[in-house]
Amino acid sequence: MDQEASVEAGEERGGRRGRGASGGAAARRAARSGGGPGKSLTYITRKVPVYEVLNEEGLALIEANADTVLEEIGIEFRDDAEALALWKEAGADVKGERVHFPKGLCRSLLKTAPSIYTQHARNPERSVQIGGDATVFAPVYGPPFVRDLDGNRRYATIEDFHNFVKLAYMAPNIHHSGGTVCEPVDVPVNKRHLDMVYAHMRYSDKPFMGSVTAPERAEDTIAMCKILFGEDFVEQNTVLTSLINANSPMVFDETMLGALKVYARHNQACIVTPFILAGAMSPVTVAGTLTQVLAEVLAGASFTQLIRPGAPVIFGTFASSISMQSGAPTFGTPEPSLVSYGAAHLARRLGLPFRTGGSLCASKLPDAQAAYESANTLNSTMLAGTNFVLHSAGWLEGGLVSSYEKFMMDIDQLGMQQKFAEGVDLSENGQAMDAIREVGPGSHYLGCSHTQANFQSAFYRSSIADNNSYEQWQAEGEKRADQRANELARRWLESYEAPYLDPAVDEALKAFIAEKKASMPDAFT
Amino acid sequence: MDQEASVEAGEERGGRRGRGASGGAAARRAARSGGGPGKSLTYITRKVPVYEVLNEEGLALIEANADTVLEEIGIEFRDDAEALALWKEAGADVKGERVHFPKGLCRSLLKTAPSIYTQHARNPERSVQIGGDATVFAPVYGPPFVRDLDGNRRYATIEDFHNFVKLAYMAPNIHHSGGTVCEPVDVPVNKRHLDMVYAHMRYSDKPFMGSVTAPERAEDTIAMCKILFGEDFVEQNTVLTSLINANSPMVFDETMLGALKVYARHNQACIVTPFILAGAMSPVTVAGTLTQVLAEVLAGASFTQLIRPGAPVIFGTFASSISMQSGAPTFGTPEPSLVSYGAAHLARRLGLPFRTGGSLCASKLPDAQAAYESANTLNSTMLAGTNFVLHSAGWLEGGLVSSYEKFMMDIDQLGMQQKFAEGVDLSENGQAMDAIREVGPGSHYLGCSHTQANFQSAFYRSSIADNNSYEQWQAEGEKRADQRANELARRWLESYEAPYLDPAVDEALKAFIAEKKASMPDAFT
Repeated sequence: MDQEASVEAGEERGGRRGRGASGGAAARRAARSGGGPGKSLTYITRKVPVYEVLNEEGLALIEANADTVLEEIGIEFRDDAEALALWKEAGADVKGERVHFPKGLCRSLLKTAPSIYTQHARNPERSVQIGGDATVFAPVYGPPFVRDLDGNRRYATIEDFHNFVKLAYMAPNIHHSGGTVCEPVDVPVNKRHLDMVYAHMRYSDKPFMGSVTAPERAEDTIAMCKILFGEDFVEQNTVLTSLINANSPMVFDETMLGALKVYARHNQACIVTPFILAGAMSPVTVAGTLTQVLAEVLAGASFTQLIRPGAPVIFGTFASSISMQSGAPTFGTPEPSLVSYGAAHLARRLGLPFRTGGSLCASKLPDAQAAYESANTLNSTMLAGTNFVLHSAGWLEGGLVSSYEKFMMDIDQLGMQQKFAEGVDLSENGQAMDAIREVGPGSHYLGCSHTQANFQSAFYRSSIADNNSYEQWQAEGEKRADQRANELARRWLESYEAPYLDPAVDEALKAFIAEKKASMPDAFT
Repeated sequence: MDQEASVEAGEERGGRRGRGASGGAAARRAARSGGGPGKSLTYITRKVPVYEVLNEEGLALIEANADTVLEEIGIEFRDDAEALALWKEAGADVKGERVHFPKGLCRSLLKTAPSIYTQHARNPERSVQIGGDATVFAPVYGPPFVRDLDGNRRYATIEDFHNFVKLAYMAPNIHHSGGTVCEPVDVPVNKRHLDMVYAHMRYSDKPFMGSVTAPERAEDTIAMCKILFGEDFVEQNTVLTSLINANSPMVFDETMLGALKVYARHNQACIVTPFILAGAMSPVTVAGTLTQVLAEVLAGASFTQLIRPGAPVIFGTFASSISMQSGAPTFGTPEPSLVSYGAAHLARRLGLPFRTGGSLCASKLPDAQAAYESANTLNSTMLAGTNFVLHSAGWLEGGLVSSYEKFMMDIDQLGMQQKFAEGVDLSENGQAMDAIREVGPGSHYLGCSHTQANFQSAFYRSSIADNNSYEQWQAEGEKRADQRANELARRWLESYEAPYLDPAVDEALKAFIAEKKASMPDAFT
C-alpha cells in the first residue's frame, strides 16, 4: 500500500497552502539520510513481521484470567455516576463504584471500535494511519523538567515547549507532534493547556494530542480544533489522539473518565493505558501484569464504546518495573519488553491499535545507560508491531526530564527503525547478482556500478554517530555523542521556520485563548 | 531441557577439583542479579522464539542465487594445493585456484556436520552446547588497542589480555573465554599465541578459542589442549571453537585454510565467517550480501567436511556496512540487523549452528553512541537465535579497541538478554491471580505475599544502571554509566581469584611454552 495514498486525501483546511511535506521519493530519501531537518515520511508502514513471545495456549490463559478479573474482582469507576449508570444499563453488575463485567461484555462492546483509523493533521499530507501495519512516532510526554542545551536541569517553560514542538516538526522520523512534550511550569496550571494546544497548532502541522487534565480542558481542545479544522470536519473526523491513563490497579478516576467522555463523544481517539510500574501497580510477574493490563484496557476501552460506538480507541500499555532496592522505576530491562510483546499480541487479537514503549530510560544523563535502555525499549516496541509510540524521543530520567540532546539522539534511532521496517528488498536490484558477477573473487565493491547506482539509499546514514577514524575524531575535539547532539539541536532551532497558518485562523485561536484566560484566575497547583 | 544436564558430564580433567561453577538455583540467582562477579549459567537455553524477516520465497531465492554464485563464479582457495586437490576429488570443477561447485555439492557434504555439539571446558560444569536453542556469549576478539581504566587509549599488552580473561571468567553472563580478547602487542607476534592460549587455560576454566594466525600455531594450540585435557580426550571431543574468516569476496587464503585444516583434522570446531563490510566486501544490498555470505559459508564449511566428516562447523556472519562518506565501518544500523536475521534463518535451514553480532559499535568512547549501536546489534543477535556470540562484551571503535568500561556495561546487557530468553512464566505463580485478588482495585502490590515471595528473582537487577532519585544520584557524584563501569571493573580485578589448576598440568604447559619459545627468534611483524 502506498503510504501517501493510504491516508484519504482530505480537503484543504487550517490554511494549508501545499507547503507541507512533499511526500514521495524526495521525502523517502530525506528520511533515509537521517541527517538534518527535512521532509517526513507520513508514518511507517511495516514490511517486516511482528515478534511474538506467547503461543495460543499462553494467550488464551491470560485472556481467561483477565475475564476472571473483570467478573470476579471488577474495576472501579470512581466519582462518576454517569459511568456507573451506563455500565449498569449495559448489563454489568455494579456494586458501589465497583463494576463487575459478565464474561464477554467488554469484548462484545469493542466490536464497534475501529482497528485502523486516520488521525488528520491540518496539513493533510501529515495525516497518519493508526493501526494495522502502520507505526507512528510521537515525542516524549509529561516531564516537568528539562535538561537544557547549557547543561542545566531545571523546570520546563513554555519556551522549552515551543522548542520541542519545533524540533518534532523538523524531525523527519517523528510523525506526530505529541502532547505535553514538557510541562510549561511557568504558565498557570489551569491555563497551560491552551498554550500547549496552540503551540502544536502554530509551530507544527503534524497531528497532535489533546489535554486530559480536566474535562473542561478537553472541551477547550475540541473548541480550538474546530477553529483550526472547521466545526464539521472535527465532528466527522478524528483530529486528536489523547492519553487516558488507568489509575492502576483496576481504577479509572474522575479526571481521566471526564476527559475520555469528552473525546469519545466527539469521535476523537483515546489511548487507554494502564500506567504500570510492575511490582507496585501490578504483580511482579509478566503474565500477572499482562492479565491486569488486559482487564483494565478491556474495561476502559469498551467504556468509550458505551459513550459513542465507533469512537477510535487504542490499547495502551506503559510497562516498567520498579527497582526492588529503591522502589524507583527501571527501564530497558527484559521484563517490560516481554510485557510489550505480550500486550501487542493481545491487542491484535482484540482488533485494536496498540501503543507501548518508546525510548524509555532511567538515566539522569544522555549517557550509555540512557542509550542502552532506550534502544532496548525501542527495539521491542518496534518488533512488537506497535502502532502509536509515545515517548519516542527526548525522554530522560524516568520521564521526569525532557532532554534536548536525548531528543536529537533518539530521532536518529527512529530513522534506523524506519529503515529496518522496510525489510529486505528482494527485487533484481536488491539481489545484486550482476554486482557479484562484476566484482568476482578477491576484488571489492566500492566502485562497481551497482554500488554507484545505490550509493544514496543503500545504508541508513546516522546524524549523530561518529564513524571517522580515531585520529580524525581526536582532531575534531574528541566529542561524545551527546555533545554532537547538543550542536545539532542548536543548529536545528536556529534554522526553524514555522509552517504556514492562515492569519485569520491564527487570530481566531488567539482570541479564543485570550477570552478563556481572562475568564479564569491564575492557578499554580 | 535442564541446562546443566544437557551437557554430558565428562570426566574429571585438567585438575578439576569441583571448585568450578556450582550450577543450580544459586547460579541462576546470581546470573539473574547481574551484580558482582559470581557463578555463571553454563549457557542460555532460549525459551523464546526466533525472529525472522524472510519468508520461504525470499529464502529460496537467496539459496538459488548462492548456488549460482558457487557454480558460475566460484570461490578461490588460494595457495593451497591440497584444498584444490580435495575439491577436484569431491567433484568440483577446479580452474586454477577457482573452485566451481556443482549444484548441491556443498549441501551434500554438510550433511555430516553436526547441528549441535558440545565444546568441553576443563571444568565440565562450564562446558557449553553450541547449536539448537543454546546461546553462548564470548568476549570481544581481536583489538590491538585498549582503552584502559585510567582513560588512556594505547596498545594492548599481555597484562590487559590477562585482565580481560579474568573479567570474562568472573562475569556471570559470559559463557566462553573467547580468543584474542586483545592483541598482546608487547609479546613477539610468533610467540604471542602461546601466552594467549595459556592465559585462557590458567586464568579461566571456561571454554576458549584456538590460534588461527598460522597452521603451526593451531598445532601448538592442539598440543597445549592435549596437556590440559589429556590426549585421548582431545581426539574424541571438541575442546576448541576457532575463528576462520573468509577473505571476502569469495576467497579463502592460505593462512585461514591452514588453521581450518588443523582444527578440522582434530575434530575441533571452526566458525567459518565471511567478514563483511557491505559496500566493500559485498554488495550494498541486504539480499546481495546474504547471497554472497551463504555462498562463502557453503564453500568454507563444507571444506571442513572434506577434511574430516563430522567435524563441528559454525555458519558465521560478521555484518557491518561501510559509511558511504568516509568508507569506515558502521555498526548498530538497520542493514546489518537484517543481514543477521536472514543469515540465521539460512543457517537453520542448513542445520548448522550460527554465529553473528555481539555488542558492536563504531564509537571511540563508551558513550551513548556505543550503547545505542551495541544494543541494536545485541538485540538482533539474540532474536535471530544466534548460537555463538563473539564480541559480546568489550568491543569499541569498530573492533580496534578493547574497553574495560564497555566490557562491564556490556555484560550487564548480556544478563538482560539471558533473562529475556527465559520468556514468560505461565505457571500458577507466574499468573499471579492470587496476588491480583489479594490486592484489588486502588491498592498496591509492594507488600503483598506474592511480591514478597518473588522479590529476588522477579526483575533483572542491573549492575550498571543508576535508578536512584536525581537527588541521590547528585549526592553520589553525578556519575555517568561509564564512570560506574570503571569502578566496577577495578573492584572485580582486585577481587579476582584464579580457578584451581593442577600444578603438574600448569608446569607441563609452562615447559611446553618455554621450549617452543626457545626454538624461535622474536618476531614483531
